[in-house]
Amino acid sequence: MASLRVPVNLGPRSYSIAISSGDADGLAAFARQAVPKSNRALVVVDAAIPQHADLVERNLQAAGWQTRRVTIPSGEASKSTAELSRLWDVLADWPADRKTLVVAVGGGVIGDLAGFAAATYARGLPLLMVPTTLLSMVDSSVGGKTGINHPSGKNLIGAFHQPAAVWIDTAFLDTLPEREFLSGLAEVIKYGVILDADFFAYLEAHADAIRRRDADAIRRIVARSCELKAVVVEQDEREETGLRAILNYGHTFAHVFETIGGYGAWLHGEAVAAGMVCASRLAEKQGLISAELTERQRRLLARFDLPIAPKSEWPIDPMIAGMYRDKKTELGRLRFILPTKLGHVELRDDVPETAAREILQTAS
Amino acid sequence: MASLRVPVNLGPRSYSIAISSGDADGLAAFARQAVPKSNRALVVVDAAIPQHADLVERNLQAAGWQTRRVTIPSGEASKSTAELSRLWDVLADWPADRKTLVVAVGGGVIGDLAGFAAATYARGLPLLMVPTTLLSMVDSSVGGKTGINHPSGKNLIGAFHQPAAVWIDTAFLDTLPEREFLSGLAEVIKYGVILDADFFAYLEAHADAIRRRDADAIRRIVARSCELKAVVVEQDEREETGLRAILNYGHTFAHVFETIGGYGAWLHGEAVAAGMVCASRLAEKQGLISAELTERQRRLLARFDLPIAPKSEWPIDPMIAGMYRDKKTELGRLRFILPTKLGHVELRDDVPETAAREILQTAS
Repeated sequence: MASLRVPVNLGPRSYSIAISSGDADGLAAFARQAVPKSNRALVVVDAAIPQHADLVERNLQAAGWQTRRVTIPSGEASKSTAELSRLWDVLADWPADRKTLVVAVGGGVIGDLAGFAAATYARGLPLLMVPTTLLSMVDSSVGGKTGINHPSGKNLIGAFHQPAAVWIDTAFLDTLPEREFLSGLAEVIKYGVILDADFFAYLEAHADAIRRRDADAIRRIVARSCELKAVVVEQDEREETGLRAILNYGHTFAHVFETIGGYGAWLHGEAVAAGMVCASRLAEKQGLISAELTERQRRLLARFDLPIAPKSEWPIDPMIAGMYRDKKTELGRLRFILPTKLGHVELRDDVPETAAREILQTAS
Repeated sequence: MASLRVPVNLGPRSYSIAISSGDADGLAAFARQAVPKSNRALVVVDAAIPQHADLVERNLQAAGWQTRRVTIPSGEASKSTAELSRLWDVLADWPADRKTLVVAVGGGVIGDLAGFAAATYARGLPLLMVPTTLLSMVDSSVGGKTGINHPSGKNLIGAFHQPAAVWIDTAFLDTLPEREFLSGLAEVIKYGVILDADFFAYLEAHADAIRRRDADAIRRIVARSCELKAVVVEQDEREETGLRAILNYGHTFAHVFETIGGYGAWLHGEAVAAGMVCASRLAEKQGLISAELTERQRRLLARFDLPIAPKSEWPIDPMIAGMYRDKKTELGRLRFILPTKLGHVELRDDVPETAAREILQTAS
C-alpha cells in the first residue's frame, strides 16, 4: 500500500508528514526516526476514540516506549486551563523530561490542547500529531498552532510549536461520522480555490470516489492539502508576513456564521463552505472574478451536501458587527480574502460594508 | 553619558540590549525602534518598585502608547498559574492584540512571569525587558527563558520567547538592597571564569569601584556580562547542543545549597558563589587546574562579602542525593561544569561521587 510523505521545511524545525491507510505498525518506526532518543510517550486522546489510542500505545510500547495515557472529554470545552493543568500535572508527576514525546490522538481540540502542553512543559517537548478527523488531518495538525480558549476568545492563549512529526492514517477516518467527514472536505476544497486550480479540478473529477472514502483518493487529497498548507506555513511560519492569512479564505464569513448559529448549529467546515461561497460572490461583486468560479465552488460543495449560504433566519446586523471584530480587521476596515482566479486569492481591505451586507441579504 | 548597545544575533529573533545610567527618557524611543507599530503596552511590575513603573509608563505614554499596569506581589510565589491567569485576563479584557507590548519591570520573577504571558497570549506578544536587579540585568533578562513554577519543580512550565528588546538602566539599581546587589555580582564573576579571563582580571582590578556602584564600572560589567551571555545563547538558543549548560558553572552545587538552606537562607547569587568555589575545588581535585585559580575566585568573591563555602551545619548526604536529581544528570552520573583554565569550562561526567562528597566535607 502506497504511503506518502510530505516534508515541511522550517529549518531546524522541519518535519515530515506521513500519510498511509491502515498501516498502524508503521507509526513507531516513523516516530523513532523523528525523535531518536525519546523513550517515554504521553498519549493524549479524545474520550470518543479509545481504540485508536490502544493501537498507538501498543505500537509505541512494542518499539520500547514507556507510555502513559490521558483521556480528554470530547468537545471544544476541553481546550481549557483545567485540562491543560491536568496534562502538566501528569507530565510533572512522571516526571517527563525534554525527551518525552507528547502524542496527540484526536481532532483539532486534542491537537491544540496537547500541542500547547508540549509547547509549555520544560520549555518545549517533542510532539507527534496523530490526527483522526479529516479536518485536523488537512488543517490543524500541520503548521504549529497550539492553544486553548479563554472566556474572551477562542485560541486566545497559545503558542507556535511545530510538531516533530505528523502521522496520518486514513483508516482512522473509518470511525468518523459522515457529517464530520463532509465538513472536513470544505477545507480541502478551500486549498484548491486559494492555491491550486488543478487540485480543484481533481476534486471535481473524483467527487464520487472521495465521498465513498476511497482510500487512494483520500490519501491523495489529504497529502495535497498538507503540501499546500506546508508551502504557506514555510513562507510565513508565525503569521507575520500576512501570507498565512490566505488560509482564512471564507473564514471572515464562517466565523460570524459559527457565532450567530451558536454551539451545535454548524460544524466549522460547514460554516467555511457557506463562507467561501459568500466570499466568492463578494469577489464577483468587486469585479475580480466571473460568476462561473462561484458556481463551480457551489456545485462542488453541494456534491458533499455542504451548505452554500447562511441560514435565512440569521439577522444581518449582528453578522456585520461580528466581521468588524475579526482579527484581520485593521483601522476599522473590513478585510476579506478574495479569489482573483481559480487557484489565487488576495487580502483585500477595499470592500465596502454595503457590499458585504448585500451578499448576506441576497444569499440567505 | 555613554550608552552601550549589545546585539543578540538570533536571525529573525535578533534584538538589542541598551545599557545606560539614568536615561529614563531614552526608553520609549528605544522601544519604538524595536516595535514600530505597537501602540499599547502592558506594564507588569514588582509591587516593591512602583516608582520604576511610573517612570516607564510616563515615558511610554509620552511617546503615544496607551498603557495598563499590573502589579505583582514580590517573590518567587508569584511565578504561579494564578498570576499568569491574571495577566491573561487583563490582556483579554483590554483586548490586547499581536502589537501589544508586554513590559516587564522588575527582577527575574517579573521577567519570567510577564515573559511567559507574552509567550502564550495570542501565540506571542512582543516583550520589552526592563530588569531592575543586577541579577536579572546580567542573566535572566537575556536569552529568552520564560516560565512559571509547578508544585513539582521550579520553571517546569515555560517557553523560549526572545524579547523584542532589553532596556537596562543602571539607575534602577539605586533602590536595590546591598545584599541583592552583591549577590548579582556572583553571576558577573561567573562569566569571567567560564568565558573571559580578561574580564575576570578587570573585576579584580575594579572591585572597589564596582562595590561602590560606580556608574561607569557597573555599565561596563553589565554590558560585558550581557555580551558573553549573548554569545552563548546565539550558539545554543534552545539548550539543544549542550553549550548553554556552561552558564550553569557552580549551579549543580548552588541548587542543592538553595534547597537545603530553604527559603530565605541564601540568595541565588550567594549559593552560586559558594557553588563556584566548590566546583573549582572539584576541578583541582580532578587535576584540571591549579589551586591558584580557586584562590583567585575565592578572594574576589570575598571582596563582595559573598559566601565561599556551604554552611557547616548542612548534612552531606541529602546534598549528594540532590545532585543526582540535577537536570544535567544523565544515566545516573553526576555532571559538573568545571574550569580547565581561567576563561574556559567543560561539562564533565567523569567525576566520582566520592570526590564531590569530599569537597562538601572539607569545604564546610
